[in-house]
Amino acid sequence: MDPNQVAKAFVDHYYSLFDTNRPALAGLYQDGSMLTFEGEKIQGAASISAKLNGLPFQQCQHQISTVDFQPSGAGSGMLVFVSGSLKLQGEDHPLKFSQLFHLIPTPQGSFYVFNDIFRLNYG
Amino acid sequence: MDPNQVAKAFVDHYYSLFDTNRPALAGLYQDGSMLTFEGEKIQGAASISAKLNGLPFQQCQHQISTVDFQPSGAGSGMLVFVSGSLKLQGEDHPLKFSQLFHLIPTPQGSFYVFNDIFRLNYG
Repeated sequence: MDPNQVAKAFVDHYYSLFDTNRPALAGLYQDGSMLTFEGEKIQGAASISAKLNGLPFQQCQHQISTVDFQPSGAGSGMLVFVSGSLKLQGEDHPLKFSQLFHLIPTPQGSFYVFNDIFRLNYG
Repeated sequence: MDPNQVAKAFVDHYYSLFDTNRPALAGLYQDGSMLTFEGEKIQGAASISAKLNGLPFQQCQHQISTVDFQPSGAGSGMLVFVSGSLKLQGEDHPLKFSQLFHLIPTPQGSFYVFNDIFRLNYG
């Protein structure tokens, strides 16, 4: 599959789940997966899912500005670098963010998130 | 070596070279290295160096805000995710940026940059 399509399809899928069905994000991580969220380090699908579902807002809307991707050199792994903004329910001003995903192919022909680094970009 | 120290030492070294001796950055890349600079894809140390040296400003100063790192799963590779701001000579307002490096160990016990993705974060 075209890496450009993989990257864009993953990004659409990830943020669509985040905004409409956050618990389902757990299926995109595995036990070895790592998340660094605003500097806090979390490992494993269960802990990552607990972190994401426990964020102190219920509804949010991601708007994607840029998606860059490169092969990571780890098998058929791919680095996907996203910038965008995040609007929380009841807040007027969206928050800018950057996020990196390192996607690793699964034997089933899909990808899972091995590395995830998220940072808000304060203005 | 402690990955935290490697990440911080690399970041200090990289931006110090960028701000004081930009041509020397070429030594941190190899032929397989990739740079995506504001969406433009460039491959190989020589082309990357030409791009960085040809940027339309002579003097600049990077200020680092955050450095996150994770093992990439590719051998002893490491992902280093940086946010900060960039002040160009003669400009009053610094530009915010985010940058990802995927560092791969060399046989000499150092690291080179395999992946580099740079984005300005417009306010």
